[in-house]
Amino acid sequence: MPYIPLNEELPGITGLLDYRKDTALPIRQLTQILLRGESTLSEAEREMIASIVSYGNECRFCTAAHTAATDRLLGEVETSQKVKTDIMTSPVSQKMKSLLIIASAVQVSGKNVTPEMIDQAKKNGATDREIHDTVLIAALFSLYNRYVDGLASVTPPDSAFYDRLANILVKNGYLPSENRYAGLTTSD
Amino acid sequence: MPYIPLNEELPGITGLLDYRKDTALPIRQLTQILLRGESTLSEAEREMIASIVSYGNECRFCTAAHTAATDRLLGEVETSQKVKTDIMTSPVSQKMKSLLIIASAVQVSGKNVTPEMIDQAKKNGATDREIHDTVLIAALFSLYNRYVDGLASVTPPDSAFYDRLANILVKNGYLPSENRYAGLTTSD
Repeated sequence: MPYIPLNEELPGITGLLDYRKDTALPIRQLTQILLRGESTLSEAEREMIASIVSYGNECRFCTAAHTAATDRLLGEVETSQKVKTDIMTSPVSQKMKSLLIIASAVQVSGKNVTPEMIDQAKKNGATDREIHDTVLIAALFSLYNRYVDGLASVTPPDSAFYDRLANILVKNGYLPSENRYAGLTTSD
Repeated sequence: MPYIPLNEELPGITGLLDYRKDTALPIRQLTQILLRGESTLSEAEREMIASIVSYGNECRFCTAAHTAATDRLLGEVETSQKVKTDIMTSPVSQKMKSLLIIASAVQVSGKNVTPEMIDQAKKNGATDREIHDTVLIAALFSLYNRYVDGLASVTPPDSAFYDRLANILVKNGYLPSENRYAGLTTSD
């Protein structure tokens, strides 16, 4: 049961973004720019940062949603699982490994990012902008995870829900739209 | 030294918001709505939430900035110090104490907010909206603190800098404007 009355048809973050639409709009816009805007990181790579931060914060809703979005973008389900359990042996580029290490540090505290982590990322070809965006995406999901769990929003147990949500996130992105969540809570 | 090249005239968050203005805009808008928009919580109470979360995250820049803003709004410097060291004995209302307890929990993890904390806040007269906004302000400063420290932005050591910044935040709010930071880094 959420701590405040939310639309029962809209679990997790969706009900919170519906509860206060004026605060939801800039949150959605920031997410759209960072996760779908122009970037030298692929959409899958950026969703991966969102999912490992959410996993580190044990936010089940956000982890499931952004893992499903990563899987849909990659067309396979193994990479997203591997980065969550062991970044260094996961099948991503050296640059991506070092960015995920930075994101994992930010998840705990901004102070946990070390000059060595940054040097390694730069040696592996990461640009200043990629480092900036990695830190800001990790910081944004530190917001989302706290928003979702701090108000005890509902976490649907069925993975089909997250597949439907991921489909919306991959097809339509993060900005608000009419009937955005049509059919989201309907069983397949 | 910041991990990425930032305008040296703009320390802390100010240089980061200048580095990528497209992502800065929704961050600023969200902050303006939450900290300066219509609310049954005073601006000082909302700045206080920002400062205790930043203090918990040991983000020196954000703590100093929002403590100075709280002090300026209250016209005294004692309350902001007391809420950071012991919420329960600080000179704020019972409602505010229970909201600050929730914010402190969110700072660590959304999962740390308990039904008992929410019950207590409601018994002390907190509305659903006040609880929502407390959680979201605490989540937003969890973003800010990680952004500021994760990229090692500069933390000016002199308290006069934060007085000048607080003056801008109290007088002009958080939205972007021409010459927003004029004179910020100039010594008094």
